[in-house]
Amino acid sequence: MWPDRRIIDLLGIELPIVQAPMAGSQTAELAIAVSEAGGLGSLPCAMLGFDQVRAEMDIFRQRSAKPLNVNFFCHVPPAPDAAREAAWKKRFSAYYAEFGIDPASIPAGPGRAPFDERLCDLMLEKKPAVISFHFGLPEKKLLNRARGSGARIISSATTVEEARWLEGEGCDAIIAQGNEAGGHRGIFLGDAIDSQPGTFALVPQVVDAVKLPVIAAGGIADARGVAAALMLGASAVQIGTAYLLCPEAKTSAVHRAALKAARDDRTALTNLFTGRPARGLVNRLMREVGPMSDAAPKFPLAAGAIAPLRAKAEAQGSGDFSPLWAGQTAALTRDMPAGELTKKLASEAAERLRGFGH
Amino acid sequence: MWPDRRIIDLLGIELPIVQAPMAGSQTAELAIAVSEAGGLGSLPCAMLGFDQVRAEMDIFRQRSAKPLNVNFFCHVPPAPDAAREAAWKKRFSAYYAEFGIDPASIPAGPGRAPFDERLCDLMLEKKPAVISFHFGLPEKKLLNRARGSGARIISSATTVEEARWLEGEGCDAIIAQGNEAGGHRGIFLGDAIDSQPGTFALVPQVVDAVKLPVIAAGGIADARGVAAALMLGASAVQIGTAYLLCPEAKTSAVHRAALKAARDDRTALTNLFTGRPARGLVNRLMREVGPMSDAAPKFPLAAGAIAPLRAKAEAQGSGDFSPLWAGQTAALTRDMPAGELTKKLASEAAERLRGFGH
Repeated sequence: MWPDRRIIDLLGIELPIVQAPMAGSQTAELAIAVSEAGGLGSLPCAMLGFDQVRAEMDIFRQRSAKPLNVNFFCHVPPAPDAAREAAWKKRFSAYYAEFGIDPASIPAGPGRAPFDERLCDLMLEKKPAVISFHFGLPEKKLLNRARGSGARIISSATTVEEARWLEGEGCDAIIAQGNEAGGHRGIFLGDAIDSQPGTFALVPQVVDAVKLPVIAAGGIADARGVAAALMLGASAVQIGTAYLLCPEAKTSAVHRAALKAARDDRTALTNLFTGRPARGLVNRLMREVGPMSDAAPKFPLAAGAIAPLRAKAEAQGSGDFSPLWAGQTAALTRDMPAGELTKKLASEAAERLRGFGH
Repeated sequence: MWPDRRIIDLLGIELPIVQAPMAGSQTAELAIAVSEAGGLGSLPCAMLGFDQVRAEMDIFRQRSAKPLNVNFFCHVPPAPDAAREAAWKKRFSAYYAEFGIDPASIPAGPGRAPFDERLCDLMLEKKPAVISFHFGLPEKKLLNRARGSGARIISSATTVEEARWLEGEGCDAIIAQGNEAGGHRGIFLGDAIDSQPGTFALVPQVVDAVKLPVIAAGGIADARGVAAALMLGASAVQIGTAYLLCPEAKTSAVHRAALKAARDDRTALTNLFTGRPARGLVNRLMREVGPMSDAAPKFPLAAGAIAPLRAKAEAQGSGDFSPLWAGQTAALTRDMPAGELTKKLASEAAERLRGFGH
């Protein structure tokens, strides 16, 4: 049924579909549904505490014997820069006044902890089928330890150069993340977001540049996208936004409402919410302050100043200050259970491929 | 062989491949080679004088009885703005000094004449199979006259909104131009380039939004791209950059050299060369002044100030000041005659589609 079985065989799955880890929008529940359907479910750990990572992995294992992908960010935490952070907060004074927030009362932002020794120990104990990283890879010694878990190691490339780098570091497969993708771009060599290639351009060039199997990501939300990605030379696809409307996702109410009103031309890359560029539906904050700002503190320190605005606005049913992460095909998403969606994407893509072959 | 024959039948061609009109880089010679091979050859008229348009159309007709697409820009020429243009020139003072150019001696820039009554008369006389427009469509009265030639009318959409607009105005087919595409973006409703969807996102959403057949453009340079575009729902593809290395193209030596060294992540949208955003290989001018500048005079008036720098630099074998138009898949281009390339793209794509169907 699938002419290229490299990813299917490597990851021990049945369908060439990886559910993209989406920190802040999902727990093990979504991963369970996707893995049970034959795809690869993913657990994003960047916004979970250590005990939560353990608990969610346990929940997954209690309910599924299928492969799980555990995903970590691997940024280097920045040195605090009090002046920069104060200036950033000051940028939002009018908003704080609007919502009656005392700027002096704002705590440090929600952390995004990178992969570390302790999480590595947990992986050696829990032995997930796959560990994926975002923003490159952890330092060599830590990566080598993680490999000892027996997990397949994968990471995202946003350019051919990054794909070659990941192959050189010993990844088992590469996610080619095109510019259409929602959420944080995996970009880790350089920071030139205006030259990031789209999925259509990135996938075949990465396929040509590396020997590893390639998972296409970015703008894939229906069977047409799955079939097209395979035509470009990908061995599988990674799908994120399309899962955000599933009942198993923890997508907030304002985020769900925004996704249902999504258009092809109303997302942009923004660094306002965390300090790193990520694609989201354009909202008030992005329109008025960005979408990109040179003043944003380094990832993830930019998040603190916006958190109370987000909380107040969401309490009023508004997504004006929320990161509404979404890829450029959010409008193609369908509101159905994640297992059903996974099977449908695969069967419809297979049917489409067969239909064109005759 | 091609499951979707809508564009093939509409335009009277044999293969679902349109050669993108590339003003400044080609004449009838390239179009003849592509049309004779069974695709749709295109003659870009934006930088040709009236007599040249007539002459090139005659050359095509002397050498081919196949369909021809004649392409026009349809921007509204801007009112001159002496202060803005003087400030723009001033921005380049150091470069003029470097090349020994007297700023006072610089003539007005090369014009890009929009479609007009006289060109319309010529179309009524010459009756090309297809007339395509870039930057929307001419005003209704002129468009209706052009229709009298019997030509199919097509134009480019960079968003679903633009596609719907073009359908409403009575186009016969729509080119969905993804963000990966080289050269001038067809964008004509709004100017938000940071939210332009990639090919992977744009094509299926345009297919869903309009009843017209869709021609996919942007990042398509090999058989994988052709097959993938058809999977996304396109009825045909438009290919530009891949034809720039063909011997029939008038691509300059510096442009050819830059294309041969192209990478996936070294193009950007720039408005420096003409005043409108267009994708090109990043060079010195784009790095040092842009790639985008709010100071650029309106299209096409920005071109004048850079023309003498380009001439001097190219005479020294440098593309530092040249518009090196290229899509994000320039690195996938193959240096072969255009007819052979057209046939190869089609036969390899068909083979790929058959291969996946079994």
